[in-house]
Amino acid sequence: MSTQRLPDQPESDPRVKAVFDDMRAVRQTDFLNSFWRTLAFDPGLLERTWAEVKQVMAVPSLLDPLTKEMIYIAVSVANSCSFCVHSHTAAAKAKGMTDAQYGELLSIIAVAGKTNQLASALQVPVDAVFNADPAAGRTPA
Amino acid sequence: MSTQRLPDQPESDPRVKAVFDDMRAVRQTDFLNSFWRTLAFDPGLLERTWAEVKQVMAVPSLLDPLTKEMIYIAVSVANSCSFCVHSHTAAAKAKGMTDAQYGELLSIIAVAGKTNQLASALQVPVDAVFNADPAAGRTPA
Amino acid sequence: MSTQRLPDQPESDPRVKAVFDDMRAVRQTDFLNSFWRTLAFDPGLLERTWAEVKQVMAVPSLLDPLTKEMIYIAVSVANSCSFCVHSHTAAAKAKGMTDAQYGELLSIIAVAGKTNQLASALQVPVDAVFNADPAAGRTPA
Amino acid sequence: MSTQRLPDQPESDPRVKAVFDDMRAVRQTDFLNSFWRTLAFDPGLLERTWAEVKQVMAVPSLLDPLTKEMIYIAVSVANSCSFCVHSHTAAAKAKGMTDAQYGELLSIIAVAGKTNQLASALQVPVDAVFNADPAAGRTPA
Amino acid sequence: MSTQRLPDQPESDPRVKAVFDDMRAVRQTDFLNSFWRTLAFDPGLLERTWAEVKQVMAVPSLLDPLTKEMIYIAVSVANSCSFCVHSHTAAAKAKGMTDAQYGELLSIIAVAGKTNQLASALQVPVDAVFNADPAAGRTPA
Amino acid sequence: MSTQRLPDQPESDPRVKAVFDDMRAVRQTDFLNSFWRTLAFDPGLLERTWAEVKQVMAVPSLLDPLTKEMIYIAVSVANSCSFCVHSHTAAAKAKGMTDAQYGELLSIIAVAGKTNQLASALQVPVDAVFNADPAAGRTPA
Repeated sequence: MSTQRLPDQPESDPRVKAVFDDMRAVRQTDFLNSFWRTLAFDPGLLERTWAEVKQVMAVPSLLDPLTKEMIYIAVSVANSCSFCVHSHTAAAKAKGMTDAQYGELLSIIAVAGKTNQLASALQVPVDAVFNADPAAGRTPA
Repeated sequence: MSTQRLPDQPESDPRVKAVFDDMRAVRQTDFLNSFWRTLAFDPGLLERTWAEVKQVMAVPSLLDPLTKEMIYIAVSVANSCSFCVHSHTAAAKAKGMTDAQYGELLSIIAVAGKTNQLASALQVPVDAVFNADPAAGRTPA
Repeated sequence: MSTQRLPDQPESDPRVKAVFDDMRAVRQTDFLNSFWRTLAFDPGLLERTWAEVKQVMAVPSLLDPLTKEMIYIAVSVANSCSFCVHSHTAAAKAKGMTDAQYGELLSIIAVAGKTNQLASALQVPVDAVFNADPAAGRTPA
Repeated sequence: MSTQRLPDQPESDPRVKAVFDDMRAVRQTDFLNSFWRTLAFDPGLLERTWAEVKQVMAVPSLLDPLTKEMIYIAVSVANSCSFCVHSHTAAAKAKGMTDAQYGELLSIIAVAGKTNQLASALQVPVDAVFNADPAAGRTPA
Repeated sequence: MSTQRLPDQPESDPRVKAVFDDMRAVRQTDFLNSFWRTLAFDPGLLERTWAEVKQVMAVPSLLDPLTKEMIYIAVSVANSCSFCVHSHTAAAKAKGMTDAQYGELLSIIAVAGKTNQLASALQVPVDAVFNADPAAGRTPA
Repeated sequence: MSTQRLPDQPESDPRVKAVFDDMRAVRQTDFLNSFWRTLAFDPGLLERTWAEVKQVMAVPSLLDPLTKEMIYIAVSVANSCSFCVHSHTAAAKAKGMTDAQYGELLSIIAVAGKTNQLASALQVPVDAVFNADPAAGRTPA
């Protein structure tokens, strides 16, 4: 199912073709998943989204590629995004995530989800020591 | 504010004292935040929660301590848990997270949050290639 | 799949029949989706839910019908409700939403989802200028 | 803080006065919290919201009043609604919830939050045995 | 679909076998759902998760088993966890939940979800009377 | 409170100054809220975020500015982002949103939040008629 029809010949639009060509080059595969192919119905949104994903996830940076994927999975799990959980778990495995690392990732997500609920239930005040900004501390909340 | 009164003398309960003593030893600090001190109203829940947090976050394992904190932050942000975001960002900084690393973490959380919404809106079917379990693939969903 | 059996002859209950008749008249179609047909297992809940949906979404009001559907979609996407995203995107298209308008809607949902995560991560204090109620400003938070 | 100014003399509007009078009678207290007093800026929304809360929470029914409040808290915690968590925890305590019962409620919320994340991460298919509707089982998902 | 391959012979691992044996004994059924069978890929995570679910949900306690399942469902619905909603609704029905009780549960979840959104939109300050902890009240938030 | 220290002289960085100058020009005000001033700690993230917010929210497009703000509010409410709800409700009011329009917006958000929970609880299958993509319909889900 989908809320939007998959474009018939998306690459007949030169803006879409440019994004898809770049995606194939950066990711070194001809496979384009359903998310990107559907998003092609709006070339501007496709361009902006890919530019950001590429900048954050594909350009070499301080964090290693596998750590980045694990953080992406964590957010997607908490947001209940089925497609994103699937695609980024597959990406993490393609980047070498072992079963033992995946088990650790799940353990952290699980304990965080649990304490998130407990803190949300108790509504305890944030300790002043956690405040990183003295000026913000003086601001009436 | 809080939904539960902070226990007056929590460590008069030996089960609470044992948890707090262990926490001070493991974390090498006398500071106990408001979450743990409030949770002491139910010693069993306190014991189970600390046992899990200790096992997952404090025992040396495959993932390094800073990576674990960053994953914890990612879940807490997506779940909008103010206390948890504060306490684990402070913990990550205490473990050496630089501004540049924090900026990368935020960039990943931001782009994940964005594509989560887009995929949730488009409701695109999960590509068969992402299925890690052939048997599950044959199960009528 | 479903957690509740679809009632066999829902309209044999006169309260259900009254709701379904009204729904067909208001929406000018004989089609009743699975949500409403399943909800018929509890006639009181069906009545209250339809009364509210009808009042808010079907009665002419200040906001035009398409704008209302787009707001409904935005909430449903953020809440990850697959059924609601599907049914209200279809409704918006039936009310004339073009691909260009849909692309804009997705762009707003995406950027909002992104900045929501960033603000949730930074936990910045709300600026006093955003407070609409001077009395609330004086209340200890 | 608040996004909407508290009406100055809300009960000068007879629709608001009727709701507030009913609320005071049903709840047997003169206290009206900030949520209801602020909602008075839109008398129709106030009427519809109170009518539903009264029908579901205040009218005697199958589930006892304390159980209802605990379910309300559970939803509010999962949705991170600070005001609702506070007001309904206070209501549950006013209806006799003991510390031991509250500890159990938190334990259930915590373990549910945890397994929710794990199942969301694993994306396992729903077992056919959980399907309550044979017809739904035959529908292509 | 699933993000993780179902282990082929999970009970060849004695830790997994011990958990599954205990689960069959406690629940008095040979059926093990897909969640538990998949989680077996990480025996430690399986052990910790089952120990907690057993302690909270299966050991007799203050709250009756059906009330516990209804609270579990409430959290799982708010967190949009499809698998958990299915499995715990089935469990509640197995423990005797009638259609009338289920209708009440849904009514509470629905009205809570609604007022959660309204309070989140209005951002009204929490009334001081809801604060359970005088000390927390004096802490600058 | 805040998880990140507000930069002391953010505009001493020319990239930050360029963003802030553009923001003041586009929004025709010297006021810069705490979110943007804090985000300045990472100039690249600030640039990317502002570029997207400007493109989507400030550049004239098909949807009128007030409708855009209402959609932004809807997402932010559902995601429980306190800062975003405050800042965009203030922005909507600055763009002319009346109390009556705001009441309608809240009514839609409320009913959507309610039916989202009901559909999430019932887990009804999406009707085939809502599928916008015939090819997706043939894909095993």
